[in-house]
Formats: sequence, structure tokens, C-alpha cells
Amino acid sequence: MKRREGEFALIERIRRILKNPPQTPVIPLGDDCAAVNMTPGFHTLFTTDAMVEGVHFDLRYTDWEDVGWKVMAVNVSDIAAMGGRPAWGVVTLGIPGICRPEAIDRLYSGMEKCSRTYQFSIIGGDTVHSPHAAFVSVAMLGEVEPNRLSRRSGAAAGDLLCVSGRLGGSRVALEALSSGADAGPFPGSVRRFLRPEPRLLLARWLAEQGAVTSMIDISDGLASEIHHLCRENRLGCRVRREAIPCADEVKLWTGRDNDPEYVLNSGEEYELLFTAPPSFNAAWASRENPERLPLTVLGEMTAGKKIWLENGSRDKLEQAGWDHFRSIKSGF
Amino acid sequence: MKRREGEFALIERIRRILKNPPQTPVIPLGDDCAAVNMTPGFHTLFTTDAMVEGVHFDLRYTDWEDVGWKVMAVNVSDIAAMGGRPAWGVVTLGIPGICRPEAIDRLYSGMEKCSRTYQFSIIGGDTVHSPHAAFVSVAMLGEVEPNRLSRRSGAAAGDLLCVSGRLGGSRVALEALSSGADAGPFPGSVRRFLRPEPRLLLARWLAEQGAVTSMIDISDGLASEIHHLCRENRLGCRVRREAIPCADEVKLWTGRDNDPEYVLNSGEEYELLFTAPPSFNAAWASRENPERLPLTVLGEMTAGKKIWLENGSRDKLEQAGWDHFRSIKSGF
Repeated sequence: MKRREGEFALIERIRRILKNPPQTPVIPLGDDCAAVNMTPGFHTLFTTDAMVEGVHFDLRYTDWEDVGWKVMAVNVSDIAAMGGRPAWGVVTLGIPGICRPEAIDRLYSGMEKCSRTYQFSIIGGDTVHSPHAAFVSVAMLGEVEPNRLSRRSGAAAGDLLCVSGRLGGSRVALEALSSGADAGPFPGSVRRFLRPEPRLLLARWLAEQGAVTSMIDISDGLASEIHHLCRENRLGCRVRREAIPCADEVKLWTGRDNDPEYVLNSGEEYELLFTAPPSFNAAWASRENPERLPLTVLGEMTAGKKIWLENGSRDKLEQAGWDHFRSIKSGF
Repeated sequence: MKRREGEFALIERIRRILKNPPQTPVIPLGDDCAAVNMTPGFHTLFTTDAMVEGVHFDLRYTDWEDVGWKVMAVNVSDIAAMGGRPAWGVVTLGIPGICRPEAIDRLYSGMEKCSRTYQFSIIGGDTVHSPHAAFVSVAMLGEVEPNRLSRRSGAAAGDLLCVSGRLGGSRVALEALSSGADAGPFPGSVRRFLRPEPRLLLARWLAEQGAVTSMIDISDGLASEIHHLCRENRLGCRVRREAIPCADEVKLWTGRDNDPEYVLNSGEEYELLFTAPPSFNAAWASRENPERLPLTVLGEMTAGKKIWLENGSRDKLEQAGWDHFRSIKSGF
């Protein structure tokens, strides 16, 4: 996948230029968040994520309140994927010359609702002129206890590769909404796409159980994040095709009974992909976790770096990425 | 100024929506930076500022390295204006589909140089697709000792209104460069415009001397920031027209001997506008400050809220703002 390779190459270029900073952070460039030490007993997590009109949101079917919620939620998801809690956010808003005050109100109202749900505070920002398309960029601070910190690396060969929730709904919603189809039969998918719910409680609970050896949130799609996690861990994996958990509405939309390929390339799911020790009991954890979310063992990590999709035979798991428009998005 | 009133109204709307956050920061929305308590003995400063292609930078006469330097420098300037030191930065980069890797290299190289000069570290970021115009949004963390904290409010009637450096060069450079004129005779102005030097050492030294009762950095222009500072302090002021310090190259460009009106509306100067106790000795401070920058008393703060420009007679000081393209930019 040429494009994806270009993305990693870009991050590598940036890493090289910034490789000797005046102060060294606890976790540098390249994870879901950077981390530094400020509060005694905690790592401070620092992350940023943006959404651009016409690329990450389409105002024909997205309310400004949804945009406000989602841009905050994707930052919360980065902090959740480190095992942390969000604390403080700032916003840069780029707006075209003509912008209705009600749009701003709804945008900030969505942000405010998200901040109340996940218990962080929005405390500052900057508003700039952006003539062609609106954008919203958020930076967020959070905290994590060192013993709860979950990085993208830390897995060993033999660890289980696991995922939370059931996937595919976000892609259903994008396809239905952008094609102008009736999205009425897909309320769960639409909600997941427009108002994603980062897995904050689940991530912290998993970290508490010692169930996480590495973790990432699914923004680019399961296939892409599996590649990402393997790369960061310098491992490969075997994924059982029939284990991939598929949301009910996927069948209703695609007309196909079980379609792991569809699900593998559904992005913006904001579920957690993590590796757990071989002793991890997914059935028990699915019953006991505070969000009552199904947790599925997809397969296991391997010392060989190949990434296989197994279904009787064995195929390479392709890292297709979910949407070419969105696919140059790359947090680091 | 209808547009400027619209800007303050916008910030007021946002303040209202966000007025009851789950946690209360030390300094909320509305200053150069927000501040929270994380590190014992310090306030943590948190700010964000963005630059948009075609609005805040023009690639016909701005190198990507300049863009990288400047977007970091304007965030450092916000932290300086609070009396603080920058520590950590993250970057959101919005780039059109086609973007030369050398451009990215130069952008980050400019950021890296600025980080080395002002001793902070760039530790994370996000890259997104922005089809029509590039943008760079930076969020920065800094620290300030509580006894050095300088806010936009805190002045009393009778305090001196002071400014650092000599102003106007940034406007000269913008006018010369954007009109295609030979900018060769204006090297100081061009440098100030493309590679502004935030007054970090000066701000901290002034705070240490007890010389600051309130402070703001000059991004929108002196006239606009005087209005801003008066508004935040619920005071007015009298400014002596002939006191306004004008850079040498202004005369060379405008052909006029002394042109305070020109200088009043030169933005992106990143000098400090501050109020000092009546006992403040500007001549002594100009000699002793670590940057050897001239410090000028413009006038004094008054209980009456009018803002006067005095020159024998007395006129209202208009808050024109510096560039209509740029003037909806408003940090809060």
C-alpha cells in the first residue's frame, strides 16, 4: 500500500528532525499520546487531533453539534488508549468569513456535552480565518498512573490479540449517509459514526486487571491498526477470520451474512485493539467490564513478522485503510 | 469596528457555553494562555495558535522553514506574555494531497530551530488532509511560578502603560513583500515579520522586578491590544502620541518622518504591552533588561474607561485592527 507507506515515511522524517529535543519526554513522538512528567505520581498525556470540513465531516448530514462532540471524542479516545483520563482541552477553530453564530453555538455545545460526559474541561482556544473550509483542531491533556500506562508497544509473542465491541457500523453509516440512502434502519451505526463513545472506562479497567500489554484505538480501521500494533511491537500475528466481531447492522446494509473484509476496513470505530497475556480470560472480562462490552480474542501475536488472516487457508492480511480521503490522517 | 465587536461577541458566546466545566482551571478562557495546577510550585500554561495558508502566510515570499518558526514563536509569545517558560509542544498539520516531502522537512526544521532557541520540545502531533489550503495548528504547554504570573488584568488607575521594542516593522515587511516591492532595504522588518522573536527573557525579567501589573503580547496591533488590555482591566488610558516608538525602517518605507498611526495598526509584532506601577523606571529597565530592549512609557491607565490619544488635543484611539484578512484571529 503505497499511500500507507508514505504515511509512515512521513512520520519517520518528522521523528528524525525532532529527535534531540531540549527535554526528553517520558513517551516521545509515535504513540497515541506523548507523555511528560508534571504531576507527582502521574504521567501527563498530551495529544492533538483535527477534523477538516469536506474530509472528516460533511455538513450535509452532520450537525455542528456532532462535529463538536466527535472532535473531542477522538482526542479522549487517544488518551483512553494510553489507559489515562482526560483533564483539559483547548480548541483551534478555523472558520470561513461567513459563519452563522448558531453554528458556533452548536459546535461548542457538542464539545461541552462531550466534556461533561468524559469529565474534562475546555479552557482555551484560538479562532482563525480559514477561507475555503472550516477545521477544528483540539489539543488535550490527560493523566495516567504509571502502572496503568498502556503503550502501543510491550507485547510478547504468544500474547492474545483482542478487540472491544463489534465493528463495521461506522462504515455503514458513512456509506448510507454519504450516498443519500435512508439511514433510518441504522440508528446504532449513525450514532457510532456521528457521536463515537471512546472506551475510557473499559481501557482503565483493562489496565487495572493487568490485561493489557499494548493498546491502540481504532481510528483507521481494524486491518490498519493491526499492522500498526504489530509494527510497533516488532511482531506479527495470526488473526482468525471468523473471530472478527461484526455489528448487526452491517448485514442489514451489505446484505451479506458475515463479512469480515468489510469490517476490517471500517475506520473511526474508536474501539480498543489490545494485546493481553495468554492467561487473559475474554469471556470473564466481557461479563465483568464496566461498559459490558464484548471482548473478542482475534488471534495471537507471533515472533515472525508476517500478519496472517486464517480461515482454513492462510492469507496475508492487507492493510487497505478505510477511506482514501481520510487515509493520510496519522496521529503520532 | 464592527468586525472586532463581532470577535469579542464570539468569545463571549463561547465563554457562556463553557462556563461550568467539570474542573475549574486557575485561569480560564480569555487570557493569553489558560493555566492549571499540575506541577507543585508552578502553574501549567496551556495555549494554542494556528496559521492558515493564504491568510497568515503566503508561500510566494515565505519559506516553509519560516512558517515552522513562526507558528511556534507565536505560541511561545503567548506563554511569555504570562511570564512563563515554554516546555512541550504538539502540532496538527493540515496538508493538501500533493505536498513535497522537502516542504515538510523545512517546516519541521523551522519548528525545531525555534524549539532549540526557546528550549521547549515538540513531542507529538497529527497530520490530516486539508484539500484547499495548508494549515498548522500548535498547542503548547509551559510553566510559570505563581509569583511571576502576569495576566491581562491586574492594573490599577495610575499605572504606567508601557511597550517593549520599536514597532511598525512587521507592517513594513508585509506591505513590501506582498506588493512585490524590493524588500532588500528592510532586513530588520522582514526578519521581524518572518521570524518573530518572542520576548521570553524580557517578560520573565520584568515579572521578577515586580514591574508588571498586567501584560499582553502584540499580535493584532498596538491599538487593538491597548483596547484589549483596557477592557480586561476595566480601565481606560491616555496614550501620548509622540511616545509611540517607531522602528527606523518605517520612515524609509512610508517616507514619513514619524507616523504613530501607521505603527498603531502594525500587527504580529510580538512585543509586550504591559502596565507597571507608577514607580517603574523605564530608562533604568531599558538599560538593565537581559534583551537590552528599549522600554517605553506610552501613557497611563485611568479610572474612566475612555481610551485617548493625546497630542496637544485629544482624540479617541481607534481600534482599527491591522489587516482585515487576519483580524478575525482571536486567541482566548
